[in-house]
Amino acid sequence: MGFTFFLLILTITNVAASRSPFNQIHLLMPHSGSAGLKHPDLDCLSWRLAVEVHNIQNWKQVPGECKTYVEHYMLGEQYRKDFDIVTEEAYKYAKGLNITKDGKDIWVFDIDETSLSNLRFWASDNAAFGTIPLNITLFVKWVEEETAPAIPGALKLYKQLIELGFKIVFMTGLDEAYGEIRSKNMKYVGYTTWEKIIYNKASEGSGVVYKQAKRKELEEVFGYRIRGNVGDQWSDLLGTNPGDRTFKVPNPMYYVA
Amino acid sequence: MGFTFFLLILTITNVAASRSPFNQIHLLMPHSGSAGLKHPDLDCLSWRLAVEVHNIQNWKQVPGECKTYVEHYMLGEQYRKDFDIVTEEAYKYAKGLNITKDGKDIWVFDIDETSLSNLRFWASDNAAFGTIPLNITLFVKWVEEETAPAIPGALKLYKQLIELGFKIVFMTGLDEAYGEIRSKNMKYVGYTTWEKIIYNKASEGSGVVYKQAKRKELEEVFGYRIRGNVGDQWSDLLGTNPGDRTFKVPNPMYYVA
Repeated sequence: MGFTFFLLILTITNVAASRSPFNQIHLLMPHSGSAGLKHPDLDCLSWRLAVEVHNIQNWKQVPGECKTYVEHYMLGEQYRKDFDIVTEEAYKYAKGLNITKDGKDIWVFDIDETSLSNLRFWASDNAAFGTIPLNITLFVKWVEEETAPAIPGALKLYKQLIELGFKIVFMTGLDEAYGEIRSKNMKYVGYTTWEKIIYNKASEGSGVVYKQAKRKELEEVFGYRIRGNVGDQWSDLLGTNPGDRTFKVPNPMYYVA
Repeated sequence: MGFTFFLLILTITNVAASRSPFNQIHLLMPHSGSAGLKHPDLDCLSWRLAVEVHNIQNWKQVPGECKTYVEHYMLGEQYRKDFDIVTEEAYKYAKGLNITKDGKDIWVFDIDETSLSNLRFWASDNAAFGTIPLNITLFVKWVEEETAPAIPGALKLYKQLIELGFKIVFMTGLDEAYGEIRSKNMKYVGYTTWEKIIYNKASEGSGVVYKQAKRKELEEVFGYRIRGNVGDQWSDLLGTNPGDRTFKVPNPMYYVA
């Protein structure tokens, strides 16, 4: 009886939700995994761990059966705790470094899902926590709102690093066409200063190719020393000139190769 | 009342257990973290994730307050599931590789907590799930018993890889003095054949220094191609000649630098 009642509630919720085209609940998502593969006995916690450790790579979407899991994870306390333990560890490491105060000791921060949260976009039915393909047009609309909040753990680390004497370089895959609005958003939420903020030019490739080239340039052309590097994607951290130490903050919603 | 009853049960268990010096339950472990640091609000799931992702490095022991958590994790289903998803992903990757059948395509397996499980040792009060310092003498006694079971996910992957035509190289930090007994143990539990099984010589260093030197030798002296590499420690996977792809299986009980 409890189960029937639960089904009834689901049905009511679904009907209510389906009234607005922008508020659909994807309860009846096809039972497909990343790259459309079936995962008959997928444990979503194991999947998330394997994704974070980079044992599962190049995945296209969150498996449909993990939508509710990822939703609870991202909206609940665990995501915040998983994030904070990483930035706290980064601060412990940073405190132990000798910096020369010549302005060349830098810390690289990625932006999306590292410094700024796009969770309001990803939690909407336009993105369904990464279980449907990314709609770039709608994502750009969200960026143009300039209302992405800072992720508290990252903002705290940012302030601590500046206090310690590091210079901050933000580096994002976002196209430079959106640089001005994004930079304004950054300032609104507390990232008030930076050494550089690097946006992408289409000609520079994407993901790991683009990021490693930019880091190489920072070190080999501009003479910076990347003492730390924090990102939510492995492509922020792999490749040449990764930084003396890298920190991977959680993101079970999308993968950038 | 429920809580009082729970305390009573704990007390009874503790008294019963304390009769044997080899069966103590460490309920009153000092509230200390890795390297003796206090973690007032440590979330053990966040800690485990940060350890697996290598955001927390060079930790000496499992934080005392996570003993019960690690115990439940290792003895319950989650560890097995977290392990299996990694080896299943490794198999998917291996199936997609073109191998030349010249006998030079190899897959490197670590031994402890990758191919063989020492969980019976780590779960004993002699090791307390990694919350107390490792007693090497007792660990060696355990190795000499030759009763370490195979980890099912690893044994399955091992068989699948052989079927696909890969040669297997086992590589372990264990000293060659114990090579003969360890190799016997390996054969007892189903690892019946290998291209090489490499034990450590004290002169070769340890951890990442030793493992990367041995992998370099495999590729550059012996002409093997390391197509895959699986280990429970980051020191199995980092450094030079890591292999075309690496897979990190879970181990929240100890860290080898």
